[in-house]
Amino acid sequence: MSKNSIVVNNLYLELPLFKQALIHKSISATQNNERLEFLGDAVLEIVVSEYLFNRFEGLDEGKLTQMRASIVNTQSLAEVFQQLDCKDLLQTSKGTNKLDETHKHSIYAGALEACIGAIFSELGFEESKSFILQLFQNSFFLLNESSELKDAKSRLQEALQAKGAKPLQYSVVSNKEGNHFNCSLQFNGKTFEASAAIKKESEQKVAEMVLLELGES
Amino acid sequence: MSKNSIVVNNLYLELPLFKQALIHKSISATQNNERLEFLGDAVLEIVVSEYLFNRFEGLDEGKLTQMRASIVNTQSLAEVFQQLDCKDLLQTSKGTNKLDETHKHSIYAGALEACIGAIFSELGFEESKSFILQLFQNSFFLLNESSELKDAKSRLQEALQAKGAKPLQYSVVSNKEGNHFNCSLQFNGKTFEASAAIKKESEQKVAEMVLLELGES
Repeated sequence: MSKNSIVVNNLYLELPLFKQALIHKSISATQNNERLEFLGDAVLEIVVSEYLFNRFEGLDEGKLTQMRASIVNTQSLAEVFQQLDCKDLLQTSKGTNKLDETHKHSIYAGALEACIGAIFSELGFEESKSFILQLFQNSFFLLNESSELKDAKSRLQEALQAKGAKPLQYSVVSNKEGNHFNCSLQFNGKTFEASAAIKKESEQKVAEMVLLELGES
Repeated sequence: MSKNSIVVNNLYLELPLFKQALIHKSISATQNNERLEFLGDAVLEIVVSEYLFNRFEGLDEGKLTQMRASIVNTQSLAEVFQQLDCKDLLQTSKGTNKLDETHKHSIYAGALEACIGAIFSELGFEESKSFILQLFQNSFFLLNESSELKDAKSRLQEALQAKGAKPLQYSVVSNKEGNHFNCSLQFNGKTFEASAAIKKESEQKVAEMVLLELGES
């Protein structure tokens, strides 16, 4: 067991819904973890929101939303799932090792949300909250009010690296007065465009659009 | 008091955060309801998700997500807020009566989420859950597994009507074989496009994009 391993309470492993949380839809069209993922996604959101709301009293809702997105995203959830000592109990039809990274991350992230949904449904809000706070204690430890949150451009770069894709070329053109910038980007045969008064912001907007396209936002 | 009025527990009105939930940002840049709205949005999501998850055991996560969106959206939240017997305590700089419908709905919906966030923060999950179940009992009563949920196109039409805008023209072109459809729509000087194997679905996708643009999704 690696030193980063997260020990899951043995009692959880006995819960019928927790067992179901570890069944990917490729195994069963009906008895799988997708409904639990729906539930767990919402539990995760309120617990992380409450934590950030209480800890960072000086931050506005925009910054809180940004902070939450830096903690809860497909990649971070996939990483946390892989730290669970029960990760090998996950059932998929082909074995996740044969899948590409993006697909694997999506399955892992979904399974983590489903595990959270199962604990919430079987044992209630407070128990699922404790579990989530344990899962994200390292992420929370690293946060501070002025921390440089991973922006959209950085998250997109990481997501593409994980896929083995080339870095993207952002093309930014300013207007005559230099007070407005249009950024465009080619990806998957499509053009993504956005504009803003700040060059960096126009790039961030476009990166967010591509992250949405990738399902990583 | 109208017969549709929702009576808010007098104890809530004494809570410092509940008072803050009724202060729109136009009154104060710092002591307003925006952080509480961030919190309440997440509480609302988990409570409605849990309710639907438990009641509709036969529905997959796609249908559950659709059902949740039919219950929780800017317009429905605004309507519920206007039924609260404490609605007139809401403070905005200009008086909401002078605002256009879209802006008003957004302020009302935000205030409702903020009230929920305040109850959650001051009194905990179970209390906020009871409050939410009370708020939405009529919506829940009308639901059933086969109910015709309001789709994106209908919601968009209603949102535009509320704004006093003209209905939109959906332009759908099929490919030669007639098994794929491209839908496009002009709105706010932009073109929104989507394609699908079913004509109706291509229109729904475009309507969702415009709802997102409007901040109504």
